[in-house]
Amino acid sequence: MSASADTPTLSESHSGIPSRLLHKANKAKSLINDLRTENVAQDLPQLPIIPQGVSRSNFNKAIADLSEQIGSDNVSVVDKPPKDDGWYMEHATTHDMMHVTPSREFMASAIAYPGSTAEVQTIVQWANKYRIPIFPISMGRNLGYGGAAPRVPGSVVIDLGRRMNKILDIDPDDYTCLLEPGVSFYALYEEVQKRGYKHMWIDTPDLGGGSVVGNTLDRGVGYTPYGDHWAVHSGLEVVLPTGEVIRTGMGALPNNNTWQTFPYGFGPHTDGLFSQSNFGIVTKMGMALMPAAPDHESFMYTFQHESDLPQIIDIIRPLRISNILENVAQLRTAVQTLAVTGRPKTDFYTGSGRIPQDVVEAEAAKLPIGKAYWIYYGMSYGPKHIRQYKLDIIDAEFRKVSGAKRIDPATIPKDNYFWSRDKIAAGEPDLEELLWCNWVPNGSHIAFSPVSPIRGKDATVLFEICNRRQDQHGCEIFPAFCVGLREMHLIVECVFDKHDPEACEAALACMRGMVDDAAKLGYGEYRTHLALMDQVAGTYNWNDGALMKFNERLKDALDPNGIMAPGKSGIWPARYRGRGWEMRSGKESSEGDGVAAAVGEARL
Amino acid sequence: MSASADTPTLSESHSGIPSRLLHKANKAKSLINDLRTENVAQDLPQLPIIPQGVSRSNFNKAIADLSEQIGSDNVSVVDKPPKDDGWYMEHATTHDMMHVTPSREFMASAIAYPGSTAEVQTIVQWANKYRIPIFPISMGRNLGYGGAAPRVPGSVVIDLGRRMNKILDIDPDDYTCLLEPGVSFYALYEEVQKRGYKHMWIDTPDLGGGSVVGNTLDRGVGYTPYGDHWAVHSGLEVVLPTGEVIRTGMGALPNNNTWQTFPYGFGPHTDGLFSQSNFGIVTKMGMALMPAAPDHESFMYTFQHESDLPQIIDIIRPLRISNILENVAQLRTAVQTLAVTGRPKTDFYTGSGRIPQDVVEAEAAKLPIGKAYWIYYGMSYGPKHIRQYKLDIIDAEFRKVSGAKRIDPATIPKDNYFWSRDKIAAGEPDLEELLWCNWVPNGSHIAFSPVSPIRGKDATVLFEICNRRQDQHGCEIFPAFCVGLREMHLIVECVFDKHDPEACEAALACMRGMVDDAAKLGYGEYRTHLALMDQVAGTYNWNDGALMKFNERLKDALDPNGIMAPGKSGIWPARYRGRGWEMRSGKESSEGDGVAAAVGEARL
Repeated sequence: MSASADTPTLSESHSGIPSRLLHKANKAKSLINDLRTENVAQDLPQLPIIPQGVSRSNFNKAIADLSEQIGSDNVSVVDKPPKDDGWYMEHATTHDMMHVTPSREFMASAIAYPGSTAEVQTIVQWANKYRIPIFPISMGRNLGYGGAAPRVPGSVVIDLGRRMNKILDIDPDDYTCLLEPGVSFYALYEEVQKRGYKHMWIDTPDLGGGSVVGNTLDRGVGYTPYGDHWAVHSGLEVVLPTGEVIRTGMGALPNNNTWQTFPYGFGPHTDGLFSQSNFGIVTKMGMALMPAAPDHESFMYTFQHESDLPQIIDIIRPLRISNILENVAQLRTAVQTLAVTGRPKTDFYTGSGRIPQDVVEAEAAKLPIGKAYWIYYGMSYGPKHIRQYKLDIIDAEFRKVSGAKRIDPATIPKDNYFWSRDKIAAGEPDLEELLWCNWVPNGSHIAFSPVSPIRGKDATVLFEICNRRQDQHGCEIFPAFCVGLREMHLIVECVFDKHDPEACEAALACMRGMVDDAAKLGYGEYRTHLALMDQVAGTYNWNDGALMKFNERLKDALDPNGIMAPGKSGIWPARYRGRGWEMRSGKESSEGDGVAAAVGEARL
Repeated sequence: MSASADTPTLSESHSGIPSRLLHKANKAKSLINDLRTENVAQDLPQLPIIPQGVSRSNFNKAIADLSEQIGSDNVSVVDKPPKDDGWYMEHATTHDMMHVTPSREFMASAIAYPGSTAEVQTIVQWANKYRIPIFPISMGRNLGYGGAAPRVPGSVVIDLGRRMNKILDIDPDDYTCLLEPGVSFYALYEEVQKRGYKHMWIDTPDLGGGSVVGNTLDRGVGYTPYGDHWAVHSGLEVVLPTGEVIRTGMGALPNNNTWQTFPYGFGPHTDGLFSQSNFGIVTKMGMALMPAAPDHESFMYTFQHESDLPQIIDIIRPLRISNILENVAQLRTAVQTLAVTGRPKTDFYTGSGRIPQDVVEAEAAKLPIGKAYWIYYGMSYGPKHIRQYKLDIIDAEFRKVSGAKRIDPATIPKDNYFWSRDKIAAGEPDLEELLWCNWVPNGSHIAFSPVSPIRGKDATVLFEICNRRQDQHGCEIFPAFCVGLREMHLIVECVFDKHDPEACEAALACMRGMVDDAAKLGYGEYRTHLALMDQVAGTYNWNDGALMKFNERLKDALDPNGIMAPGKSGIWPARYRGRGWEMRSGKESSEGDGVAAAVGEARL
């Protein structure tokens, strides 16, 4: 959700963003430039950074072998010296463009670009042979959660998206599609339009440049009634860590015509094993498309006081659960609305700490939202008389909050962010969300994303945690309540200057503090940044960590050599547990290739 | 779906059926009596039937040990001689009441009744110690698919439902519940009513006496808009085959308040591993409850000709996907409507083979459906003007079929089956569906349940398979098309006289033929009877059986001793594969306890 979704590299030909939409790039030009040039001084390790436990000579031999197997054009070693600005940037989709730690901490040794499922198998078998950790990405636009970077330094990133970017099927009768990992929300949208399927919508998250497959596997969310992407997927093709290929659901039945229409198949439904995990590489995914709503209209409400929060949330709960509010309900602060204009904080306030509320109010008053603390964005679907039935209920409920206002869309200028939300809630990808990164120089972001019931008291507690940690660390945060169906994700985007090491440290400390505070009260995150995966996984520790022990047992059974995305979601293979912990860092080992054998767990 | 759902034993105190509803039992009295008395002559094996690979003396020792650990009242050995009628019937929930094979083929050696998750752990540890296969059931009402019977003869059935039957929570704000396996749809419904939660509905399958947990784990379906039970569950507590307990989703976070509101948690979503599988015993399950519709009305259409089928299905597809048809769309034959009056076939026709169509038409003409071949049952939800919008669209579409008629509900007598469907589609459990078992003497049923897209041509092909195999084997079948969202289950109920060995054999042969015919054309089953699990699992064999090999790898990792429901969904643990195949049968081994060790796979 929010900018936690994959973020596009606008100018790339395989970005899936049609050229006519690149005017968005100009609007966000300064931001994009920031993403491409860096000025952080760093001490310089030898390149490429190779995985701990592998000797440099064996690594070189392995890369030569891989290049021979899949073609040298499809293997790229990250061995270029840093640019003048001190930043390693071979390719914008191969690093965490929004790094909150020194950029080499989550840095790949090489990138492999498979062109087929068979080539993915080849790479996986290669990794098993050389005990080299691999880290699959779809398009690497998991911004706010690590981008294209691997968890273990020196991993070979498998960039599926560059060459495996085909829309394999769109079925206009069943309303389904079958996709490779390199298909972006933009690309899917454009293809649906190109085929003239006006009766079908896609669902898109806040930013449309990311991979549909990648976003879905990370359980990302969009803004039409089909917003829960994982819930509407149907069927996976997966390369297992030992190299075999399976198809889940009805895909396991030869000559079937139901792989994308019936998600479950027969026997255990194993798809969930491959979401937010390191148990396999998804090479194809089926997904439902939504029948276009006969008609739709966006609406916006504003609320005046911070203290209105619990009342608003308690009003939202029954409306959302009963589908009167039909898509992910979003409640944002006025500060974020100022920021999404793309103007920096210093345009409004040059003092330290949080921008004072009187300043926010004065500036908000100049915008269509007017003086307000909270802004609710929503959309109603269906024919006019059915929309009206729902909108009347919504209006009556929201007006119970003293000072609540409905903002007439007719009064909102066409370049206002409201219309970006309008597009997204109707399944049209957009990029405008990215603009709040401009709030600080070299703006990057990282997200804290706890889940709670849709209750005023939970909202209040979580919001208090945010504000306290924000003040403690002097960070800039944008908390937005995103209401799924029975739960809400509070998506707290922390924006920071990634060229300022202190700001990076403060952002990370702020995140860590929030995770801890929340866990103590029983709140957990639905998704997190690479740097926080161990910490977040550690909070899901009921019954002496029984679930992680279970995940580890699965991991060891499926990935005996521990080569597949070690550490993803906090799941470490056997050779990285116990005394293998140091392999999680990028420090080159004096033990060379002996480590894996010494740990005694690896076997082909 | 259909009577594939769990079927109640009406008179039992723990059935979850309130006594005031037992008038249904009287209506179905002859049927229920049939279920309790049997007349099949059988040769008599020594009782109890003990699992192959275990010596009788060790079995006795193991049972004594178990009785000591969980109390002798909670262990019941199936050692009673057959009744006068030649049938073993210790307890109606411990066998397949609708056996299609000789009753001892899927017969338990003993039943254990745990009272808590800890006792389930105790039993699992006990099974590992003695290498005795265990077979968990929730309430054992999986009629048409094996009832309460275990896959491997001599297994110890773990009847969770008798003592673990608490509704642990119903949350009237979040619209969720947390259930133990012994909670029936009736019990949940009654509790919601008792608490006065008029704003909440449950969802129920055709028969309301079965376990909510059991039905959901078998991916059963109901008839409100929340019909896909698995899709609306949230959170499991599971005892693993090695005895540990995990909680999935947010349940892994101590002190959480989101276990039932957010299904996914953090990291891999492993819930699916425990549906239709033998990877663990679910001891608690969370589930969403539906906000009551503001209003609702059932409707019925009839169609005149068998050949209308493809046109009807093609009309249903877009209406269902776009949610104009809001619940599982059901298209049944007039023959089934005759049968669900509870009258035997011989009331209508005493010849052999299928009841002639002119007889069906003449009899149907006496019922509210009138002369018809197909009957569509549906419900529209919401306020009057919103229902009307949808009903007008539906009417315009269905009337494109020549001879289509809308039957005015005002003309339908209150005791007609239509009103049973009306109740069920509004979330009120019922039992009337069971009545078509009376079609033949000692009526039992077994289901063939293939999945297809919602397309006329698929419907035609599948219907042709049914008719051909029916005629070949001289069986009585009721095919009903149940349209989920993007797919349909064709639920083909085959009714047979379970006291007639030839009828049993014919029914099973008919099922086997249908499974094969369908698989050759790319259609697979969503669920099946114990006797067909190997066959059906064998059809999901893409890429040289890659998915089953994957399942077996999971099985071996999670259940190293192979004690948990061996063979469920066709998944056999290592010691039952290869030369261990004979352990799948009930034949007592001369090798005694040596088999497990000899196979070399079992370890504690």
